[in-house]
Amino acid sequence: MTQISFKGRDILSTEQFSREDILHVCEVAKSFEKVAQKQETSDIMKGCVMASLFYEPSTRTRLSFETAMKRLGGMVVTAASEDTSSLSKGETFYDTGKMVSAYADVVAMRHPKRGSVDELARGCSVPVINAGDGPGQHPTQALLDIYTIMKERGTVDGLTVCLAGDLKYGRTVHSLLMLLRHFSVKLVFASPAELRMPDEYKEYLRDKNVDFKEVDSLEEGIRGSDVLYMTRVQQERFEDRAEYERLKLAFVLDYSMLERCGGVTGSSAITIMHPLPRVGEISMDVDDLPGAAYFRQAANGVPIRMALLAFVTGRI
Amino acid sequence: MTQISFKGRDILSTEQFSREDILHVCEVAKSFEKVAQKQETSDIMKGCVMASLFYEPSTRTRLSFETAMKRLGGMVVTAASEDTSSLSKGETFYDTGKMVSAYADVVAMRHPKRGSVDELARGCSVPVINAGDGPGQHPTQALLDIYTIMKERGTVDGLTVCLAGDLKYGRTVHSLLMLLRHFSVKLVFASPAELRMPDEYKEYLRDKNVDFKEVDSLEEGIRGSDVLYMTRVQQERFEDRAEYERLKLAFVLDYSMLERCGGVTGSSAITIMHPLPRVGEISMDVDDLPGAAYFRQAANGVPIRMALLAFVTGRI
Amino acid sequence: MTQISFKGRDILSTEQFSREDILHVCEVAKSFEKVAQKQETSDIMKGCVMASLFYEPSTRTRLSFETAMKRLGGMVVTAASEDTSSLSKGETFYDTGKMVSAYADVVAMRHPKRGSVDELARGCSVPVINAGDGPGQHPTQALLDIYTIMKERGTVDGLTVCLAGDLKYGRTVHSLLMLLRHFSVKLVFASPAELRMPDEYKEYLRDKNVDFKEVDSLEEGIRGSDVLYMTRVQQERFEDRAEYERLKLAFVLDYSMLERCGGVTGSSAITIMHPLPRVGEISMDVDDLPGAAYFRQAANGVPIRMALLAFVTGRI
Repeated sequence: MTQISFKGRDILSTEQFSREDILHVCEVAKSFEKVAQKQETSDIMKGCVMASLFYEPSTRTRLSFETAMKRLGGMVVTAASEDTSSLSKGETFYDTGKMVSAYADVVAMRHPKRGSVDELARGCSVPVINAGDGPGQHPTQALLDIYTIMKERGTVDGLTVCLAGDLKYGRTVHSLLMLLRHFSVKLVFASPAELRMPDEYKEYLRDKNVDFKEVDSLEEGIRGSDVLYMTRVQQERFEDRAEYERLKLAFVLDYSMLERCGGVTGSSAITIMHPLPRVGEISMDVDDLPGAAYFRQAANGVPIRMALLAFVTGRI
Repeated sequence: MTQISFKGRDILSTEQFSREDILHVCEVAKSFEKVAQKQETSDIMKGCVMASLFYEPSTRTRLSFETAMKRLGGMVVTAASEDTSSLSKGETFYDTGKMVSAYADVVAMRHPKRGSVDELARGCSVPVINAGDGPGQHPTQALLDIYTIMKERGTVDGLTVCLAGDLKYGRTVHSLLMLLRHFSVKLVFASPAELRMPDEYKEYLRDKNVDFKEVDSLEEGIRGSDVLYMTRVQQERFEDRAEYERLKLAFVLDYSMLERCGGVTGSSAITIMHPLPRVGEISMDVDDLPGAAYFRQAANGVPIRMALLAFVTGRI
Repeated sequence: MTQISFKGRDILSTEQFSREDILHVCEVAKSFEKVAQKQETSDIMKGCVMASLFYEPSTRTRLSFETAMKRLGGMVVTAASEDTSSLSKGETFYDTGKMVSAYADVVAMRHPKRGSVDELARGCSVPVINAGDGPGQHPTQALLDIYTIMKERGTVDGLTVCLAGDLKYGRTVHSLLMLLRHFSVKLVFASPAELRMPDEYKEYLRDKNVDFKEVDSLEEGIRGSDVLYMTRVQQERFEDRAEYERLKLAFVLDYSMLERCGGVTGSSAITIMHPLPRVGEISMDVDDLPGAAYFRQAANGVPIRMALLAFVTGRI
């Protein structure tokens, strides 16, 4: 395995990761597990400042980035302006990037506008990590998703992975596809007809010779899958509220559905993932199943972000 | 005195504190005074991360929690979303609790909704400290109030304590009652008729054999009291603005009123407390009196929160 | 040079600085350059807590204050309430000052209301640094501006400095004047007639025997100047949008204008400054000129704020 150096590089999109890169990030994340799990301390980021630029609320992503940085002994500065701050004064992201280069050693940025993080990175002379740019990319989430599959199943190769829910607008699943394609997986897309995987992504997968099929019921998606990746069906996507309610209910996972599909226990037990927050699409009666991995998945955000922060700043 | 272990426990309500608990917390707070007063440094919370979840503005409580954590060598992560953050995406507090467990060693949470902190604590596997849940509880404030009385008067037992102002909606006084009842105090409730102490609390006190009386003028409350605990009469409680103005004025403490009541100096000088912020209900001409304890009271928030943070994380 | 002690002093206005003070601050800032530029680490602020009270969004000023504090080993607590926080509950700045004294060792405060920082400082027993009080003062910006001129030109004495753009409402230029007057400079004010330097400042300069002239075109201002200090012409200053567009365009600096004025390269190359954010008044084709100093100027905020924090807390 050729180890690619991430030093000084931005993390903007999952497209920039090769299979080797992914495996390397996961390996380093694993080495940080004890620190992430509060059993050991570290100071490999000592003296290093991360600018936490979250121009949009995001409890989970922000907390895990800041926790990752601090548990490695680093520092965090923030201008936590969810109202887009001085950007509201009309500054370009490019200029913000120029400016923040002078203060921080690394930047984690989230913004509702697609392309905003790329633009900031162009102005920025220190590494920038995309923590989600609206409908665009969310590479750190996709990496922690792959890491979670590895931890839960031992491997990614050979698995059947069902992506379910809103496959049309869900940034998370789109980012994830671009990592999954490096593994020999079978994909199942389970969604309401209105929220199908867009053609561009299906073209992409055909181009990369990734095996996939589409189904329109959640149960069908579950049967035969090793991993179920649930996503949220957002109300704001629907003009018709009744339509939303109907579809939402059809894509709610609960214990009885899992039982019907034979995915509760034993060798056919399915690994259940979700980027969170959930708003009812996974019933709480699923939470205690051994395969319910979504809270462990959220926890995996810390070692993955530790690995990325350490990589791009050249501390590892 | 049996020393109760707080390790791993949540601090959700003043109801969970026995007299021994209260005295123990105050004793430990006292041992942190030099660190809180910036005369010594400490690192007993080294490696420990507090999640600061303030879903509501609160300069004083938030600053004192974060100051307490940092002066003890701990770290703070925050997703300071006063617009209720991803909760606005509909996540349950339970799920937020599950998630934050993975990142932090301890959580300080404030939220405008009663019961929200309890729900988060149910999902959370690390200790949660309630920093105020709307009209619900505010246990850390009540503990620092008791601590202030002890520091100012040497003891709580034997004192006559007047609670004045808005006794109907004031969360602070309700939380405080549940600690005061462990001491042999006489209580005086001084409020406008519209803002009297609710029956449930009076029942509670009768049940616990706590001596109390109600008066409807501030002056009457002051005469004979050792401690005056003022609270804010909030405009938003009144539909009629003129009514608000009338009542507000009747419950303004100033130097001349104190002088008339003989509470200014000497052995009958009264200890004046207020949870702050004040909005005019204590005149600035009172600030320089030896008994004006409200700014010292605010300062006491640091050692008390230091004690609680150290307790629940098992660092002490 | 008599070295004035800043220990325990507030930094509220540029008026409080003598020439010796300015030189001294710049000298100390220079000694912090390696730390600010991430080449060395420091812990001279160890154990020291800065309260970061930004009641208004300000990415640049806030990030540079927090970066300065943390790179010197200090701690930051914040109640980042851009909605003016508990002040919305009506607390006076005086009371907030009393309160924050109990928690922090030093305060950096920004607020949209003129005089707010002075009032907080009156209540506060620890040093307060004004990080901008609306139309009032912005002393740390003015100091970093002078520092930038020194670094870029070697000296301030003997230079011709053109202040351009909105000279009527621009807080930055007003604060800067009060420092420039300590040096033997020639000033040129280039602005639209509607946005001229107010009479009070011109009186002030005449009183101090500072040489200045007014011109109404940007090109005229550039010719013969050593330093060009651009400011933003804010749309909100104009009732008539068409008028705004006209004036804005007339005060846009681009490469071709600079070339016409002979300020691009060589011994007559002009040093171009801007407090940022810019919103189009400097064209990006200027960015790569050797004299384009505005991003270096933003970077200079860190060593200057390091010097001020270290001074007022007595760590230096």
